[in-house]
Amino acid sequence: MSFSPLIDQLVDALRCLPGVGPKSAQRMALHLLESNREGGTKIAETLAQAVREVKHCQQCRILCEVDTCKICANPKRDGTLLCVVESPSDVLAIEQTGLYRGRYFVLKGHLSPIDGIGPEEIGVDQLVARVKGNGVEEVIMATNSTVEGEATSHYIAEQLKPININISRIAHGVPLGGELEYVDGGTLAHAFQGRRSIF
Amino acid sequence: MSFSPLIDQLVDALRCLPGVGPKSAQRMALHLLESNREGGTKIAETLAQAVREVKHCQQCRILCEVDTCKICANPKRDGTLLCVVESPSDVLAIEQTGLYRGRYFVLKGHLSPIDGIGPEEIGVDQLVARVKGNGVEEVIMATNSTVEGEATSHYIAEQLKPININISRIAHGVPLGGELEYVDGGTLAHAFQGRRSIF
Repeated sequence: MSFSPLIDQLVDALRCLPGVGPKSAQRMALHLLESNREGGTKIAETLAQAVREVKHCQQCRILCEVDTCKICANPKRDGTLLCVVESPSDVLAIEQTGLYRGRYFVLKGHLSPIDGIGPEEIGVDQLVARVKGNGVEEVIMATNSTVEGEATSHYIAEQLKPININISRIAHGVPLGGELEYVDGGTLAHAFQGRRSIF
Repeated sequence: MSFSPLIDQLVDALRCLPGVGPKSAQRMALHLLESNREGGTKIAETLAQAVREVKHCQQCRILCEVDTCKICANPKRDGTLLCVVESPSDVLAIEQTGLYRGRYFVLKGHLSPIDGIGPEEIGVDQLVARVKGNGVEEVIMATNSTVEGEATSHYIAEQLKPININISRIAHGVPLGGELEYVDGGTLAHAFQGRRSIF
């Protein structure tokens, strides 16, 4: 209940944002209308433009407003390396480390038969086609370390097996700054199996 | 850094929302573009309309899209009671209790000389005019229980003194469900001073 149907509609609309409940949505609406209308206009205009113009890169399926994204179009990136991730935010996280110089392929999700998401929905055919004709020498599977992520990684590896390339999986182990005491058993088991000689 | 200047702009715009930092803004932008474009369009359209159309009620200064808000226009509300609050969200909180049947006056802030906010900025003249000619019999000061809220309440009470009406302040004390052990000394002192006879 409120004193204005328009504000109620706005509160309702803001609840589409992830992690925003009724109280936060109300706070956001009142803040924008009471003290930052300029910011409100900026959000409305940029959001409308982004919804209209942002699409997916035809090669790696990342979000961008042109046909071929900056990473795919950059001749300095190593075309022999292809990193397979679940979502655009994973690409952002990897890019922020500044260490990876290859290209990407975004699955937009993971295999989940119960939700009707099979190989077609996550673009496995498109990935296989991309790997075949483009000089790719190694595919790095960087899907999440969840049951679904592991299954997706395994399925894709099976599909790529007939092609003569390396297929690798990012390492599992103890995160930096992690205390052994608080690390779960599965992670510890991976850390021991994947141990590396110091000298 | 990102793969699209438009997404960067959107992330930047979303940071105008209260309590939203760079990580949450990025999550919101990617979520809307990747999985809920309809919600994105809804937010953009409703927000643009709200910024354009929502103004302040001419009588109580609450946010609404008409000249006189629902509460001021409702003849069933008790016109002899006027509750003075700092912000429209305070009105919402009080309305949600469903107990108060009088009208409101929104100060839009509190006195804060250090930020250049004096009586004019919070509309004290407008409040005095409202109280004088409209059959108001009691003014309930419901500003926040902060130093600024108390000072604002005190100042306004002084200004209203010459008019022949009751001026009251909402009660301070132990909140419901509060354990005495964790209640601060100032609140406890108020709770003792304001004690009421049980029989």
